[in-house]
Amino acid sequence: MQMKPHFQRVTIIGVGLIGGSLALDLKEKGIAAEIVGVGRSRENLDLALSRRIVDRAVQDPVAGVKDAEFVVLAMPVSTIIPTARKILPALKPGAFLTDVGSVKAPIVKEMEKAGVINFVGGHPLAGSEKGGAGAARAGLFAGNRVILTPTKKTDSRVIRVVQEVWEAIGAQVFCLDPKEHDLILAAVSHLPHAVSASLVQAVFRRFSGEEVRRTGAGSFRDLSRISASPPELWRDILSLNREPMLEILADFRKRLAELETYIKEGKSEKILEFFSEAKKYRDAF
Amino acid sequence: MQMKPHFQRVTIIGVGLIGGSLALDLKEKGIAAEIVGVGRSRENLDLALSRRIVDRAVQDPVAGVKDAEFVVLAMPVSTIIPTARKILPALKPGAFLTDVGSVKAPIVKEMEKAGVINFVGGHPLAGSEKGGAGAARAGLFAGNRVILTPTKKTDSRVIRVVQEVWEAIGAQVFCLDPKEHDLILAAVSHLPHAVSASLVQAVFRRFSGEEVRRTGAGSFRDLSRISASPPELWRDILSLNREPMLEILADFRKRLAELETYIKEGKSEKILEFFSEAKKYRDAF
Repeated sequence: MQMKPHFQRVTIIGVGLIGGSLALDLKEKGIAAEIVGVGRSRENLDLALSRRIVDRAVQDPVAGVKDAEFVVLAMPVSTIIPTARKILPALKPGAFLTDVGSVKAPIVKEMEKAGVINFVGGHPLAGSEKGGAGAARAGLFAGNRVILTPTKKTDSRVIRVVQEVWEAIGAQVFCLDPKEHDLILAAVSHLPHAVSASLVQAVFRRFSGEEVRRTGAGSFRDLSRISASPPELWRDILSLNREPMLEILADFRKRLAELETYIKEGKSEKILEFFSEAKKYRDAF
Repeated sequence: MQMKPHFQRVTIIGVGLIGGSLALDLKEKGIAAEIVGVGRSRENLDLALSRRIVDRAVQDPVAGVKDAEFVVLAMPVSTIIPTARKILPALKPGAFLTDVGSVKAPIVKEMEKAGVINFVGGHPLAGSEKGGAGAARAGLFAGNRVILTPTKKTDSRVIRVVQEVWEAIGAQVFCLDPKEHDLILAAVSHLPHAVSASLVQAVFRRFSGEEVRRTGAGSFRDLSRISASPPELWRDILSLNREPMLEILADFRKRLAELETYIKEGKSEKILEFFSEAKKYRDAF
């Protein structure tokens, strides 16, 4: 049997693609009687109201969390910690708190430092580009994964409740240690973005758009696509996920240097081995 | 007015995806009365015969080029130079010779060293993965680009004839200096493959397939896709295109190091600038 939680009031801070879509689902599935949306942009809040994504909209997060039983921090990852600091004293006792940031260890650490036990970190793997309330849609999380990052200090009740909320709207939930989360996300998401942007930088500093268009194969198109992601998002993520990112970048740099050495020294059988191994990994994946 | 050449006999050495598709088009458009296919694998030649891709099939390239008026070297790039050396003395005087290799300068240099004036290097940008005669199909080149790489020593007649052949089967032809070709292809095709394989190597040496699957976003999927390309192809290309590849790899390495420094030193505005510039380049492209 699957439990479906119910709250009188849910507050979502940051009504963008993730926060707005979550609000739509919580309402549709009867998980929240009232949804309060908090955001800095009045224009975006008005859009959220007119699209009936939220029932009420306020710009002040402290006022927004009043009497809420379930609070979601759904803003850009760089503003989660400062906003959490502001709202913590205003939270209703016993209210559950979670977030949707793409980096987890620094946020979890901050919450534990502040003595918050009703918090568990979360990360829905469902498109992180910010698109405002206009991009929100019901059903965004159905069939997608959500990572929760509890620690030994996390109250088991908050893990259960947050998990039930995500599962009630169709997501598949699994848990990872916050540091483990940040390292593997650095590898499978943040590193690809860093590599794509560096590739685009290297190619276009030397060749014109027209030269690249005329000769560019699907391979360049594939690898450069994500370099068009919102730069602010990657500034925030790479800044906050500093240590794991440097660790994974060092791994990548070593592998690339290995291949470069084989090319330089004309070791064609080593080049073959390098590509064969990569193909074996990719085919199995 | 567009000229359509006509030959009594065309010989295609290497009846794979490129050579086989070219053969089908040359026959269909009435450019060749007879097509001779040359290949090392009897099995592949039999397939080419049964699919009516070629009229005759022989394993010996010297016998294969006998009396041919137009000869195409369509084998893996690593075997073009040794095969060219073998067939040159056997070519009918005045026969036109071209190739379809992904690397041009070393091949062109070898031909000029051998005093061949009826040769122009070619590179159709239409899928380089080897698939044998089974993968060949008519119309593969229609609407796709073909690069020719003449030099000051190239007879203008061979450029014109080879260009007319490609245009007659629907390709768009343009010319590049062989070295220029190798540098830009290193940037837009060979570097992406090197980067993709290095990314896959870095990620899978640290994490299991299951860990990557559970957390991997579309970004990793996009960037790792081409690491499943045929490893022999990339051994050949990177070995032959050594100098340009090292030059472009150095460019990429510098840009990546730049980003790494910004992350290490916590320069978030520099990270923003790096990604903003990459996005601007990509959006314009």
